[in-house]
This record gives sequence, C-alpha cells and structure tokens, in this order.
Amino acid sequence: MVDYICSYLDSIRDRRVFPGVQPGFVHDRIPENAPLDGEPWPDIFADVENVIMPGVTHWQSPRMHAYYPALTSYPSMLAEMLTNAINCLGFTWASSPACTELEMIVTNWLGKMIGLPYHFLHNKESDGGGVIQTTASESTLISLLSGRNITIQRYLKLHPDVPIHEIHSKLVAYCSDQAHSSVEKAALIGLVILRYVESDAEYSMTGAKLLEAITEDKKKGLIPFWVCATLGTTGCCSFDDLENVAQVCHKEQLWCHADAAYAGCSFICPEYRKWLKGVDLIDSIALNPSKWLMVHFDCTVMWVRNSSALHCAFNVSPLYLTHEFSGLAIDYMHWQIPLSKRFRSLKLWFVIRSYGVKGLQEHIKKGVKLAEKFESLIKADKRFEIPAKRHLGLVVFRLKGDNMTTETLCKRINSRGKIHCVPANLNGKYVIRFCITSQRTTEQDIETDWKEITDVTNNLLSENSLDIALQEHREVTMKRRIGQY
Amino acid sequence: MVDYICSYLDSIRDRRVFPGVQPGFVHDRIPENAPLDGEPWPDIFADVENVIMPGVTHWQSPRMHAYYPALTSYPSMLAEMLTNAINCLGFTWASSPACTELEMIVTNWLGKMIGLPYHFLHNKESDGGGVIQTTASESTLISLLSGRNITIQRYLKLHPDVPIHEIHSKLVAYCSDQAHSSVEKAALIGLVILRYVESDAEYSMTGAKLLEAITEDKKKGLIPFWVCATLGTTGCCSFDDLENVAQVCHKEQLWCHADAAYAGCSFICPEYRKWLKGVDLIDSIALNPSKWLMVHFDCTVMWVRNSSALHCAFNVSPLYLTHEFSGLAIDYMHWQIPLSKRFRSLKLWFVIRSYGVKGLQEHIKKGVKLAEKFESLIKADKRFEIPAKRHLGLVVFRLKGDNMTTETLCKRINSRGKIHCVPANLNGKYVIRFCITSQRTTEQDIETDWKEITDVTNNLLSENSLDIALQEHREVTMKRRIGQY
Repeated sequence: MVDYICSYLDSIRDRRVFPGVQPGFVHDRIPENAPLDGEPWPDIFADVENVIMPGVTHWQSPRMHAYYPALTSYPSMLAEMLTNAINCLGFTWASSPACTELEMIVTNWLGKMIGLPYHFLHNKESDGGGVIQTTASESTLISLLSGRNITIQRYLKLHPDVPIHEIHSKLVAYCSDQAHSSVEKAALIGLVILRYVESDAEYSMTGAKLLEAITEDKKKGLIPFWVCATLGTTGCCSFDDLENVAQVCHKEQLWCHADAAYAGCSFICPEYRKWLKGVDLIDSIALNPSKWLMVHFDCTVMWVRNSSALHCAFNVSPLYLTHEFSGLAIDYMHWQIPLSKRFRSLKLWFVIRSYGVKGLQEHIKKGVKLAEKFESLIKADKRFEIPAKRHLGLVVFRLKGDNMTTETLCKRINSRGKIHCVPANLNGKYVIRFCITSQRTTEQDIETDWKEITDVTNNLLSENSLDIALQEHREVTMKRRIGQY
Repeated sequence: MVDYICSYLDSIRDRRVFPGVQPGFVHDRIPENAPLDGEPWPDIFADVENVIMPGVTHWQSPRMHAYYPALTSYPSMLAEMLTNAINCLGFTWASSPACTELEMIVTNWLGKMIGLPYHFLHNKESDGGGVIQTTASESTLISLLSGRNITIQRYLKLHPDVPIHEIHSKLVAYCSDQAHSSVEKAALIGLVILRYVESDAEYSMTGAKLLEAITEDKKKGLIPFWVCATLGTTGCCSFDDLENVAQVCHKEQLWCHADAAYAGCSFICPEYRKWLKGVDLIDSIALNPSKWLMVHFDCTVMWVRNSSALHCAFNVSPLYLTHEFSGLAIDYMHWQIPLSKRFRSLKLWFVIRSYGVKGLQEHIKKGVKLAEKFESLIKADKRFEIPAKRHLGLVVFRLKGDNMTTETLCKRINSRGKIHCVPANLNGKYVIRFCITSQRTTEQDIETDWKEITDVTNNLLSENSLDIALQEHREVTMKRRIGQY
C-alpha cells in the first residue's frame, strides 16, 4: 500500500483529474451482497485500480482547481497511520491523556503562528483555547449555538418572566450575502432567523451595513445575537471588514465568529494578517489546516475566547465519563457536538514539525505566486474579464458577455477532464473559480492549464457558439427532467 | 511507521493499558512554540515513544475493558492509508463519484447483513438508504432535527396561523432514563423538551411506559415528536422494547430512531436480531462498525426510511456545489451536518471483504463467549453481584454492599494500570463495567484480569476497608477542590 500510494502521488499528473463517469458506474463492478467468506488481499487490492480509481476526483492533482484545496502530505499521512493504529477516542482527558494534551499544545502553536491574542490560547490566565473540530461547518454551528445560549441566558436575567421560546423566536444571526452555505445550515439547525447583509462592491461586509441591519431589527423588537464574518469567501475569496464588524459586535454584545476556513492558513505569513485586524474583539475563529497547510482532511482548528460558553451549550456528564481528574483537565467532549474525537493533533504536529513555520510560509507564498501568474495570463487575453479582485490563491474569471458562454466553457473544460474548476455566482455573474491547490502545481502546469482553457475557448467562440450553447443547455435540462437514477 | 505499528500492536499486552500520568504531563516535553525550520524525521518519530505513548490509553489492549470498544484492524488501516492519500472530499457526487457510490453500496451490504427491511436500502423503489456519519451522536442529532422539521411542517399544515416558535416550544422528545448522553445533547441543540421515560427492572423502556408519557404530554397541550430507542445502553447493554416502542411511535406519528451504536454490530449474527423486532416501523437506525466490527473510528452507519426528511432539514445548494448530475445522483452533503466528508466507505469495504460475513460473525461470537466466561468467574465469587443481566460482551458487577467499596475498587484497579474499566450508575447502584473489546483478548487474559480484580479486592477487604475508603474519598474530593490546572 505504501508503494502504491507513492506511485499514485508521483504519477498523479498523468491521470484525468475529473472522472468521466456517470451516476451508477460503480454499481456494475461490485456484487450486490457482502461476501460470506473472507477474500484474499490481492483481490481486494486489485479493485482499488479497477473499481475505485476510475471514479475518483483527484484532489491532489496539480490540475485540480475546483473548490478550495484539500491537501495531503507524507508527514500528515504518517501521523494518521499511527492515529489509526492507536485508535483511541479522545472524549475526556482520561480516555487518552496524550490526545487531549497534544491538541492543547498544537492549537497553541498554530494560534501563535497566525498571531492570535493571548486570550485565545490555552493558558492559566484565560478561559480561552483551541480545539480541533471535524469541519469549519461544525465550528460555525458550535459558535452559533454557544451565542444562542449565552444570549438567551442574558436576556432571561433581564426579563425572567419571558418564556425561552419567545426569546428564541426573536434571535437574529447575520452574515454577508457571500458567506458559505454552512452558515445557512447552522441557522436552520439553530432555528434562528438568518439575515444576509448586502456586501459592497468588493464583496465585503462592512461594519456600517451590519450596524444598519442590526438597528433595523432591534427596532422591530428582534434580538440580534450572532455574526459570522467571512475571511476569504468561497465565491471569490473576499474579506469582510473584520475590524469594523468586530467593533459593532462588541458594542452591541453579539457573538462574533470569524470563518477563515481557507484564507486563515495564509495568516501564518505576517503580510496577510491585515485581514485579521479586529480579532482581539471577536469570540471565535476557525481555519482549516486541511485546506492549505498540507494536513489532510478532516482538521479544523477553532479558537474560542470563552470556553465556558461552549461548556454551557453542550455539557452533559454521565458517570461513565467522569474520571479522577474531571474538572482539573480539559474534557474536549464539552467543546464539540459529537462525544468522541480522533487523535487528530498528531497530524498537525507532524506537519508543522516537518516543514517548520518557514516551510509552511513558503508553501503559501508559492500558491499565491502561481495565482498571480495565472491572473496575468487572463489579463493579457481581452476576451476574458476578472470581475473580482484576486486574493491569495484564487482567481475568478469569465468570458465577457452573457453568462451562458462562460457556463458552457466551464462545462466543456470539466468534461474533457484535463483540469477541474467549479463555477460561482457573484451577484448574478457566472464566474469560473480557478484555485491553485496542489503543492505539485508548477509554473509549467499553469501554462498548460491556460492552454487548455484557451483551446476550449477558441473552439467555443469559433462555432456559431450561442446556438450550440443553447442546444447543450436544453439537453442538460432535458436530462435532469428525465431523472435517471 | 509500518514496522512500528506492527510491533506496537504485537506487543501491546506488555504496556500499561491506562497511563499513570497527571494532567499537564505533555507540557514539559514539548517546546512552547512551533519550530521555525523543519525538523528531521528521526527526531519527530522518536517523540512518538518518548512523548506520546506514555500518555496513551491503549484501546487496542486485550486488557482494555472500559467504555465500549473501538477496534482497529489491518484491512481498516490499509484502507485509511489510501483514503488519506487520495484525500478527496465527498460532499457532492461530483466531488468524488467513487466516494459516494461506494458508500451507497457498502451501506447496502451492511444493511442486508443485519437484516434491515428493503426500504432502508438504496434502491430505485424507495426513498431510503444508508449514510456513513462521523459518530452515533451526530446520527441521533440528525434524526432529531429531521423529526423536528417534519413535525413542524405537518403541524403548520393543520394550523397555518400558529407561529413556528410556538409549535417548537411544545415539541417533546423521549428516551429511556438509560439512554446515552448524546440524546440529551441533541435535545439541547434542537432546543426541545426531553422527557426521560422510566425504564423497567431490566433497564428497558417499554411501549406502555412510553405511551403513558406521550398521553400525559398531549393532555398538557405538548407535541410529542421523536423517540430514541436504545438497543444496547451504555450502562449495562440493556435493550428497549423496540417492537412495542415502534408501534406506539407509528400510531402516534412520532419519528422513531434506534441507537444501536454498540449492540447493532451483533445483529450480523441472526441469533441477536430478536432485539431488532419492530425495525420495519421505525424511521432511522444507527450502529457503529467502529465499535465492534474492527473498522476503526470514525465510522457510524445510519439508515433512514425517508431521506427527503434529511434533505428538508439540511438542504442548502449554492452554485459552487451544483454539478451536471445534481438531482440525478446522491449528494451526501444533504444527509449530514458538515458539508464535507472523508472517503470512509473504503475501510468498511476492505474490512467486510477481508473477514467476510462469517469472519465478522465469529469475531462477535468470540467476544460474547469471553464475556460469558468472565460472568461465570464473578458468579462463583460470593463477594460480588451482577445487578443487571449480561447481554453480549458487557458484564457489569459490584461488590455487595455500599457503593463506596466498589468505587474504591474501580479506582484502585485503574490506578494500577493493568486493566482498565469505567463505572456506571444503575439507578443509584455504582457498578463496574467490564467490556470485552480487543480481538487480541484470550481466555487466558480473562483469567489474568480476574486475578487482578480479586487481588485488589482481597487487599481492599482485608484492610479496615471502610475507614480507608472514606479517607481516599476525602482526598479525591479535596484534590478536586484545590483545582489543579
């Protein structure tokens, strides 16, 4: 397996990055029922290449430019091998002390690496600290639930006769209209009103617009309680104005959470910390080392100012989970939604030690440099436009004119499978996102990718393109209506 | 690393199963800050044994009897090596088709292996199917949220003028007083009333008691909406009467979820499926192959009858997540709380194929047989009692008499580190849980473990035991009050 993995990653450039399969393709390659008797390992192993690989979207490919990255690396994989062999569950300190303690230490390391204030670190003076969550979605949900709980408690103190559900019905959460879909999901789960604040011309939520919305809602008798500021949106990697948003939240007593899932990784480079201004006033922040720091998924680090807010939201303590040091050590089960957690700090520890802070900074800088190169190639081609400023490793672009041509371009690129991109909708404009992801991507790759894009574009525009695009669009719509399984 | 892992697992019997460390022990062994430059691999690797292992609770040890098991195996580890190398995210079908499709197939395999009705499987005729969740806690939460959503919608149809929050404030969830703490957490998150139904003498929730509670609550104007039936409680592996509970739920239109986290694994043996009677009427069920089927954590398989109930609770669909086959293929992001998921079906697939159904059945049977042996050893010693019937691989026992003697026994056993058990509270009775976990446990181990227990017991009882126990109890209380970090 080790040899197979090394060869897979070494030769990944030769594979089609996006598979050319249809839904149901695995179905015919695997029996309907589990085998009664065990099968020999060579048969199982052979099916990796025969059954699985034809249907894999190769996220580690240098030609993968969709979504935001999910990188892996050898130190990360080695750590996880050990994690899976030990296979301890880290719900309480006692369930595996090293699991809890290493998590406290490496979240402190990473917190310092991005310049977080002292109160976000585990230390004797503060109630704050870091925790590794499964995903950024969960971190958003946890902070929303903690804010919900704190606000209801605070309101109850002032108005002890108001039923909890009346308070609950008035709670309003805020985020930019560019925020990630997980904010909407968190509001659905928390059953609170979510108000999207209109972003400005740079796709950024300003403090003024937020305050305007809060003031309006308060006039209506609603209770604003929580804000998610996005640092690096999914659409175009724009940044909310954290400094002013945080000040508004602080003044209005709202829980302020910063979702820095992708861009937060770049804060290990001091030159990108301008976007973190205001962090000293916020309540929680999360970033995904699983995106850009070569720690494979899942690994989201979340820091909170006030861990007792999490405890109050989640604390349930049956006897089978108490231990001699209950109350003296951190039991991470109170910091998260599931009871159990894997020993995930090992992979963060191995990766940070293997590359060092400098090595990780170089990795970020290289990604940004390649994105700049790609941006300059687009800018030199007058058929294209870049409708949102490039930040970090993400470039969004489109063909000038109607949306349909860019949509067709995106679909054709993906169907050829040489590179993989996904679209986004920026206030009605259909754009293609091109994110530099893999640490294997080189300048040469960017040139090859650009050639692929221009080849497809040349063909597309040389055809009586609009007619053909219309036809293709009709076919896709038809296919959906027919509703194949 | 492969060699280290093999040697770790081969010689795990020689390690102290429960570490003898104090909170903060890792602190002095690791620098305060991340290294600026990368470190050589041998230095990092050496710290596994120097820093980490002294603080690990060895869940794979044959002497580990705490909690419920979390087993690993070579096929499971091999699959995860590959998963971590591919490191694809499976939120939509397109984000890695093989990830979604294999998950559909192996959850069908396992569903058939435990005898689930056809409507819980992925097929063209039904809306049901399986999904791999991170934990059983999350499955419980997801089913509660889906039930909440469905009930609010149904109620709104009948009473369109009632505000959602008024309906919400009346929702009541039910579980046995023996249910897992994750049910309480789910109710806290869903912000619904949770009512504990008193279990009977066998620690089982009956349909009659449930109906009584529902009827009472309806008289008060409340809206019963969701029930969690536990198949294999954490305290003593008791079983709610699913057949009658499901009938009550069906009649009263409540979502019925079965939490079979541990015991569900045993249902691959037909002789244990008696506890599943009634499953054809329920809405969702979850079990953890990560507990007893040698698939390492995390891996919870959840089956639902009506996947659109999950969709309605969680569906958010931004453009960057749509793809050519949206609507034609399953996008698992709508079946779960986080957006992203790992390629977890690989490890389930490798394990089922490597052992075959028969091999896995033998593994379950061996665990039960060893538990029977341990039970017979206890029964032969008149100083002990078994206050709850043994089911499957869990034996609960205590010293006859007051709770404090058993509590002292449990603490002393753990502090010696040779075997590891945790206590439970069975309606006021302090018991020690002894669960057969590791596939490495042999009859000889059980005898050695029993000798350890009786050695500690002999010492404890030969002292002027009550006085000493009282003193120890005072010391622990004092230590907690002093509140070391």
